[in-house]
Amino acid sequence: MRAYQSLEKTFARLNNLDHLSSIVGWDYAAMMSKKGSGSRAAAMAQLDVMRHEVITDAQLKALLQSAQSETLDHWQQANLREMKRRWEGENLLPAALVEKQAIVHGRCEHAWRSQRPANDWKGFLVNLNEVVALARERADRLSQARGLGRYDSLMDQFEPGTRSTDIDRIFGDLKTWLPTFIASAQKKQASEPVITAQGPFAIEQQRALGLEIMQLLQFDFDGGRLDVSTHPFCGGVPDDVRITTRYREDDFAGSLMGIVHETGHARYEQNRPNDWLAQPVSQARSMGIHESQSLSFEMQIGCNPAFMRLISPLIKKYLGDQAAFAPDNLGKLYTRVKPGFIRVDADELCYPAHIILRYEIERALIEGEIEAAQIPEIWDAKMMQYLGVDTKGNFKDGCMQDIHWTDGMFGYFPSYTLGAMYAAQYFATMRKTKPALDADIEAGQFQFIFDWLKTNIWSMGSQLETDALVTKATGEALNPMHFKAHLQARYL
Amino acid sequence: MRAYQSLEKTFARLNNLDHLSSIVGWDYAAMMSKKGSGSRAAAMAQLDVMRHEVITDAQLKALLQSAQSETLDHWQQANLREMKRRWEGENLLPAALVEKQAIVHGRCEHAWRSQRPANDWKGFLVNLNEVVALARERADRLSQARGLGRYDSLMDQFEPGTRSTDIDRIFGDLKTWLPTFIASAQKKQASEPVITAQGPFAIEQQRALGLEIMQLLQFDFDGGRLDVSTHPFCGGVPDDVRITTRYREDDFAGSLMGIVHETGHARYEQNRPNDWLAQPVSQARSMGIHESQSLSFEMQIGCNPAFMRLISPLIKKYLGDQAAFAPDNLGKLYTRVKPGFIRVDADELCYPAHIILRYEIERALIEGEIEAAQIPEIWDAKMMQYLGVDTKGNFKDGCMQDIHWTDGMFGYFPSYTLGAMYAAQYFATMRKTKPALDADIEAGQFQFIFDWLKTNIWSMGSQLETDALVTKATGEALNPMHFKAHLQARYL
Repeated sequence: MRAYQSLEKTFARLNNLDHLSSIVGWDYAAMMSKKGSGSRAAAMAQLDVMRHEVITDAQLKALLQSAQSETLDHWQQANLREMKRRWEGENLLPAALVEKQAIVHGRCEHAWRSQRPANDWKGFLVNLNEVVALARERADRLSQARGLGRYDSLMDQFEPGTRSTDIDRIFGDLKTWLPTFIASAQKKQASEPVITAQGPFAIEQQRALGLEIMQLLQFDFDGGRLDVSTHPFCGGVPDDVRITTRYREDDFAGSLMGIVHETGHARYEQNRPNDWLAQPVSQARSMGIHESQSLSFEMQIGCNPAFMRLISPLIKKYLGDQAAFAPDNLGKLYTRVKPGFIRVDADELCYPAHIILRYEIERALIEGEIEAAQIPEIWDAKMMQYLGVDTKGNFKDGCMQDIHWTDGMFGYFPSYTLGAMYAAQYFATMRKTKPALDADIEAGQFQFIFDWLKTNIWSMGSQLETDALVTKATGEALNPMHFKAHLQARYL
Repeated sequence: MRAYQSLEKTFARLNNLDHLSSIVGWDYAAMMSKKGSGSRAAAMAQLDVMRHEVITDAQLKALLQSAQSETLDHWQQANLREMKRRWEGENLLPAALVEKQAIVHGRCEHAWRSQRPANDWKGFLVNLNEVVALARERADRLSQARGLGRYDSLMDQFEPGTRSTDIDRIFGDLKTWLPTFIASAQKKQASEPVITAQGPFAIEQQRALGLEIMQLLQFDFDGGRLDVSTHPFCGGVPDDVRITTRYREDDFAGSLMGIVHETGHARYEQNRPNDWLAQPVSQARSMGIHESQSLSFEMQIGCNPAFMRLISPLIKKYLGDQAAFAPDNLGKLYTRVKPGFIRVDADELCYPAHIILRYEIERALIEGEIEAAQIPEIWDAKMMQYLGVDTKGNFKDGCMQDIHWTDGMFGYFPSYTLGAMYAAQYFATMRKTKPALDADIEAGQFQFIFDWLKTNIWSMGSQLETDALVTKATGEALNPMHFKAHLQARYL
């Protein structure tokens, strides 16, 4: 087992560097002063170089090979598999390509920050073409080395083992019923008036409310904290998880449910397998499984009418008594369906439409079936088809709205909707054992739910591959019917 | 100039690692969750290893030698000198000694945290003996390599160029008049009653007051921030300086003047020579010069009656109107002389006595004139002699009160009092040009003072050695008479 042990040491070193990177990354978003960005960028770049040096050490290849024939237990075998995955991720590509991508992505994202508000598609396209060319080169190389399709080889970085044939099947079905479903839900809601809450809502009160709800959801405050950043996220390290939100004085709802969402991510991180925290096998299984936790909290628990009955008194306690804070009305506020331009503002029903559209475009782009210049036209057509929304000429609220492509993150978008589907499937499974789950939620009794998630997901880390994890937990691989059933129960 | 340029690259890399270390170090003290310490310690230890690897690279010795004969300008020459200083600091000692010290210091400090409250001198002594033995070995080795005395070779790490013959002369003089001086000041103050401020003082109000006073003192909030930690400090990086304080609801005074003190450190850091920030020559000159900035702010500006007149309305604005907040009374609060056990709680007059005592003991210890077992007896005698305070048997408030020796930081204590003396000398110099300096302070007009400090100290970094820096700024090397004159003017 000597090769394996030597690998564990190397990956523990890597974990230390990841720790530093997480903490300064969180600091960058939540704490850093305006003038601090220059020296911080240099320090973070150097950290990346050092991480790259560790993972591209020439000895690792042979060690990974030798370890295969050593006697390893279950967890060690899985750890070795995950080591190999990370090693491949950084060793199958020539350094020149990685460096070039870093430069081109940086340039594209930086320019995008001013091109987007200026609605400057033409300017953006120049950089995007470069980004796409390099992404295709990366896809080609990974595809050859790993025997996967081109788009699949990119998606595999975020969703190990998931293939576009799966996504095609899942999204293909969704596409057939989603537009009609959205229309029906809107029609039903048209006769259900909702009362808007009247601000301002003091930020200190919103924060106190958020903290109490995190407590309710059993966030471990000895191992984490809540702060503010422009773009909410969950960062930090497993024993010190840092979630962020942003507050608006005129709207408490977004920040509050944002906190619930990030608390889902956080509890996954806080409960990763304790004995393996320094090793790759302790990592969250995939982006989709991570999102399945935040969406279990936000959509399955948070937007559930039972949860609204639970938190209505808390909202009143911190924000004062208003008719809008009645449980029924809160439920309506959080489930209002309204197709719009912006993905991150989309409701639970429209969100998948945004994802399908992006998936279809980015897949065709990477496979070379379309060119970046064609994106707006296709975008406009699909937005009209899926959501009935006209985005013609409105690039900034259309195909220029997301940061993902500027950074060459092709293959990431499906994770969001996979996450929503996994979450629905978990809760369908839980309800089989415990049909009165909503009574638990209303009573603030989360132990059954959290024990289930901890046993089946959190404590498993990356021990199983995604399909095996989900099958072990729910008795079947991803089955999108549970998501449909969830939406039907909630919206029709 | 090729060797020099290659050195600049290496030291810029080192600066990036220092940046990471500063930020996670600040995070450790100000942000980290309770459970985060284990993985953080591992990550920080790894960072130290990497820094050590960079600075002990085998090529550096030859490069430092070659660069000596290259054509360098003024700043480059000074930078090379400082590079060499840092290189020597980490290359003159065998790795085994450095590692052993890290382990022994960690053990001693850790045990001290419970031994001190338990007043357990005997238990502490076991570890302290080990710490002293290693400190002596370090001193021996540095002494041989650099041709300095043993204690001097340790003090040189904090006060480059300052020797114990200087300290003996300076402290020797101070010792002759300080005890009588303290008695006279106490006698005078006995007939000047002071009104105690009545709390509680809400922490949010204290923080808002502190921020306004930082603004008044021209702290750059685009390049820094104020947070809370158990032990206040100034950390971060020059373009993002992080100062901390701690609040007590029953006492606003300590936290407020603590903020003024740290703001002095911060402005030094925020104004280090901009073109050289990634290089050693941009660093603060010494611990004593750093302390001279915090004490310029705290003692020369902050505790000045003119400053009390300036901030009295601000204190009332945030903490409410009380008789105690009248300028005269505030002045009395902040200059009350009262000998006591604890160095960090000591007033301006008693503080140097605490320092002299520690200096005399640690010097004798390192030179082998006494053993650690003798410390309590000597401590008791000197406390009685200098401050008239009886510490017999009270180890926890006596020789076990400071963290410095647990960590082997012998040679640091003199910096505190050197700082107070430099500060007095700067202000004596400023008053020669501008006798009505107090009128400026009372009016909140700090431009003359800050321009002087920026030109003479902040922007100089480590370009000059300490004596040259002080002589260029004030026309003479350190002259303790200015400190005495300052105290006489304030206390008699």
